[in-house]
Amino acid sequence: MKLPTHARITEVGPRDGLQNEPQNLPTEHKIALIRQLAAAGCGEVEATAFVSPKAIPNLADAAEVMRGTEGLGITRFALIPNAKGYQRALDAGADGITLVMSATDSHNRKNLNQAVADSMTELAPLAARAQGDGLAARLSISMVFGCPFEGDPGLERIRAIVERMAGHGFTRIGLCDTIGIANPQQVHDRVGRLVQEFAGLEFELHFHNTYGRGLANVLAGLAAGVSRFDSCVGGLGGCPFAPGATGNIATEDLVSMLEASGVRTGVDLDGLLAASDFLDAQPGTRIQSNRWQVHHAQRRLKQAA
Amino acid sequence: MKLPTHARITEVGPRDGLQNEPQNLPTEHKIALIRQLAAAGCGEVEATAFVSPKAIPNLADAAEVMRGTEGLGITRFALIPNAKGYQRALDAGADGITLVMSATDSHNRKNLNQAVADSMTELAPLAARAQGDGLAARLSISMVFGCPFEGDPGLERIRAIVERMAGHGFTRIGLCDTIGIANPQQVHDRVGRLVQEFAGLEFELHFHNTYGRGLANVLAGLAAGVSRFDSCVGGLGGCPFAPGATGNIATEDLVSMLEASGVRTGVDLDGLLAASDFLDAQPGTRIQSNRWQVHHAQRRLKQAA
Repeated sequence: MKLPTHARITEVGPRDGLQNEPQNLPTEHKIALIRQLAAAGCGEVEATAFVSPKAIPNLADAAEVMRGTEGLGITRFALIPNAKGYQRALDAGADGITLVMSATDSHNRKNLNQAVADSMTELAPLAARAQGDGLAARLSISMVFGCPFEGDPGLERIRAIVERMAGHGFTRIGLCDTIGIANPQQVHDRVGRLVQEFAGLEFELHFHNTYGRGLANVLAGLAAGVSRFDSCVGGLGGCPFAPGATGNIATEDLVSMLEASGVRTGVDLDGLLAASDFLDAQPGTRIQSNRWQVHHAQRRLKQAA
Repeated sequence: MKLPTHARITEVGPRDGLQNEPQNLPTEHKIALIRQLAAAGCGEVEATAFVSPKAIPNLADAAEVMRGTEGLGITRFALIPNAKGYQRALDAGADGITLVMSATDSHNRKNLNQAVADSMTELAPLAARAQGDGLAARLSISMVFGCPFEGDPGLERIRAIVERMAGHGFTRIGLCDTIGIANPQQVHDRVGRLVQEFAGLEFELHFHNTYGRGLANVLAGLAAGVSRFDSCVGGLGGCPFAPGATGNIATEDLVSMLEASGVRTGVDLDGLLAASDFLDAQPGTRIQSNRWQVHHAQRRLKQAA
């Protein structure tokens, strides 16, 4: 088992973590969170999404969040599902875009109200447009390892999407396990095949910890040759299609495991724990990271002593 | 990444899970739990410990638990720290013994009130004695990957213990991460070295999920050539020396990950979830497994529908 010396993390908490919280954070607190994440060394933050405010009311303040987080020296991604979202993200000053689509028609229709083929057609020109506009771009494919409606989409469907979208100029592809169903053997085999076949692309992995195997899947991904991961401060998040699902893998758990294993991340654990403390103080949030739970218990013991 | 086709699990819930619970389970409920675990296909269960009832009041009913779980067709291990515990376990009808000691003097003194060398001297003759008495025997070494008082004990100390105890006839050696501090790179390197060096021994791994990396460490252990693991139904447990520590890796999370990855365990997931349901219904217990949380949420959704 040979791990890379470095891994890169895209912090998705302000978007994936906050979008489903029962109590929406005030905009100024979202901005404060992103500032804390930047201060902790997160070089890439998915700051918000330009989607229908009816679909995701929590992120209706996307433009304000973008405007309030300028000049931090980080790349602030905005998730977008279509060309309209692209324009809004560009207008608001986003530094990068995460284009989202699913591997399965059932989920793509539920989430984006169109077939996978139509999403591809709509998103395809945005790679070139982002390059022209000076925006970083990543394509995130949901349900790569399993779909709540269709089960495992299989390697071939993923390969076909990757091939077509790479042909349109996408170079950075996210393989996302939105419901947390992936297993390490599957991750290793599927991702390993894609890494070998598309050697010119940069793959990144997005895991949820639904079944507690999020970090095991990270390890399998590292072994398959990927060193870019999404994660979420505090392990917030979930999935509306996966009841009981815990959130994204927690950034503090990921950083803690990687750094202990000799993989440098450039992210400061204490800074992350401070950001989770900040989230913990917000009404309704529930911090799900193991590392923070230890931090929290130790602090309470100290206070009691 | 080549995983084995089969893994073997020793369910340690009735001992490691219950020993620290704030509210002790009635003896008949412990017996009922062990029966449920046996029915779920757990072939080996660490049923209790023969230790000082002052040190671990929850397990003062060890003999009654043993008597109440005869004839289940499983191997019921009892944890013991010394020769006195051995005799009590034998008298009570245990099928196997888990002999416990630490890799570090600091922890061994706190836990067992003697130096590591003295534990080795006391435990050494018990391998032959167990063989004579027809008991299965495993030696569990705590703090193999880190100690709250001394940090990482390093490979050499572990190797010396293994070498000496193997010389006394121990063939099954547990490498235990009692505080959950191990990381996958360390597990892979340390365990891989021991597996290579002591090819005649059977190693098993015992992880806690303190920092959320328990299953990642399992994966690293599998990659290092080990296919025996301890785990605990419901992920109960903790460590008195590690504040905030979550419990053992949960059996249902372990089985779920292994079976999904094509590694057969012989354990029935639904049976495990039923056992966790039973524990959840006990006053004061808090089920910590991810797999059970999903099961629980789905059931509530069904009931609400």
